[in-house]
Amino acid sequence: MAPSILWIGLGNMGRGMVKNLVEKGNLDKPVIIYNRTRKRSEELAATLPEGKTEIIDSIEEGVKKADIIFSIVSNDAAVEGIFNTVAKGDVTGKLFVECSTIYPETTEKVAKLVVDKGAEFVASPVFGAPAMANAGQLIFCPAGPKSAIEKLRPYTIGVMGKSMIPFDDQPYANSLKLKLIGNSMVVNMVSVLGEAYTLAEKSGIGAAPLKQFVDGLWGGVYSAYSERMISGTYWKMEEPLFSANNARKDAGHAMELAKSSGTELKLVKVADDYLKEVAAHAGGDKGDIAGIYGAVRKNAGLKYENDA
Amino acid sequence: MAPSILWIGLGNMGRGMVKNLVEKGNLDKPVIIYNRTRKRSEELAATLPEGKTEIIDSIEEGVKKADIIFSIVSNDAAVEGIFNTVAKGDVTGKLFVECSTIYPETTEKVAKLVVDKGAEFVASPVFGAPAMANAGQLIFCPAGPKSAIEKLRPYTIGVMGKSMIPFDDQPYANSLKLKLIGNSMVVNMVSVLGEAYTLAEKSGIGAAPLKQFVDGLWGGVYSAYSERMISGTYWKMEEPLFSANNARKDAGHAMELAKSSGTELKLVKVADDYLKEVAAHAGGDKGDIAGIYGAVRKNAGLKYENDA
Repeated sequence: MAPSILWIGLGNMGRGMVKNLVEKGNLDKPVIIYNRTRKRSEELAATLPEGKTEIIDSIEEGVKKADIIFSIVSNDAAVEGIFNTVAKGDVTGKLFVECSTIYPETTEKVAKLVVDKGAEFVASPVFGAPAMANAGQLIFCPAGPKSAIEKLRPYTIGVMGKSMIPFDDQPYANSLKLKLIGNSMVVNMVSVLGEAYTLAEKSGIGAAPLKQFVDGLWGGVYSAYSERMISGTYWKMEEPLFSANNARKDAGHAMELAKSSGTELKLVKVADDYLKEVAAHAGGDKGDIAGIYGAVRKNAGLKYENDA
Repeated sequence: MAPSILWIGLGNMGRGMVKNLVEKGNLDKPVIIYNRTRKRSEELAATLPEGKTEIIDSIEEGVKKADIIFSIVSNDAAVEGIFNTVAKGDVTGKLFVECSTIYPETTEKVAKLVVDKGAEFVASPVFGAPAMANAGQLIFCPAGPKSAIEKLRPYTIGVMGKSMIPFDDQPYANSLKLKLIGNSMVVNMVSVLGEAYTLAEKSGIGAAPLKQFVDGLWGGVYSAYSERMISGTYWKMEEPLFSANNARKDAGHAMELAKSSGTELKLVKVADDYLKEVAAHAGGDKGDIAGIYGAVRKNAGLKYENDA
């Protein structure tokens, strides 16, 4: 019999992940879904085959029914809130798979809450934009006891993910360290692109030849972020793919990790300053990370919004 | 009859380019080669089939014999020196293809010297590391009269290059602007990697999982530069692939272009500071751009050289 799964958190990552779990997870029961605002659960359930999800209104209720509990929510406080609640109930023998991007110490702290009460815990942040979550192409970075990671494995490659960077029998914190370093590299890439496209426009050559160069040398995510800039998606989108606030939270965590490790992320500091301007201009929860292009443009005397 | 070609400049880019020109250029005469130090010409000629190159000792002599004159040398002063010499002789009907990475205004200046005397000029910086030059995989960015660019085309894709970003009938300066913006993105990428791998080590996760992430999300040049860092190539190499001095020259030009265009490359400023430390530690002409990793390591209290 397949395990019973509870999913906590239906943001733009969680929704795609649940969809793939439902479609390819080889489950014999509905995925139990929980979101702080019930409306999102209902919207998601409506897009999936009937009987494949079960909406619940309390985390306690969901944990009782579940063998494996996934969570992916937006910040440290939300994760701590969930685990404080969960740890009040019986968690013996259950497996918690925490996928949020939070500070490494927070992960260790919440892990302890449930592990001390007889549960297993895997810290498994994921890399990939919402479109990758939707396509089941995420990179999973699980840390924890190897035996617990093995229980997670059937739901990763070929279901929600394309690959795994496992930290077998290593501290939970390690996967979060990798995630923060990785995200800092992504935000830096976006700043690099934002500065470059702004200079292309200001110097008179325009974005087109630079885009050709970017496609030729990097392609992939470089080209995808370029598209979001050149096409104006960065200011036209309704819901951000990666909000300025979330990006700032990650940047802050990454800089904190660097500081406590005795090094410095100078480039992330620059990116974070741009993100502040994105938040000021477009709103912290509305502005997208690609809006860094808008922030650079504004600094250069152009309009935040391009003419796309 | 195929045109007669003179090649000026046999650095680590020029050598690979001449090799491909000789092997795949469909020429019916030897490529005339010139380098400031004759030894490099001799060394290159020795690696190519006999009769395929002709070494000359003066630029004037070479220009007289040639229909197309390529040049790729290390800085603005060297390019100006060449064109000041060349412009003293008869250049009517000859095509100059200048591939060095220099300041856009310098290109316009040297172009005028020969165009005013009846020559054609194409400014065609190239993107790609020496290994790409060697493999005939460069990206050519020619700017100038379309008719002149057409004369260059037979020697680019399939011979020395893999693609072209043409600026047909546009100012010569435009191709250099693109080149400087592109190079600024490359140096930024190297800084991003240098900071990230240093934090991976300092935070205790080590380089290996980060390398796996980099391979998964970016691959290509990201992975190549990662290799140069992790394997210690950045401090073990005899001759730099891209020297700290050349990288600083390009970074300086890019920041100058940004300033004169009314914007700012904040990230390049950070990279340039690291490059200064590379030059101080390893020597400006000996240190490689990937040594930025060493500079970040040093700032973080580690040795410049890693344990690879």
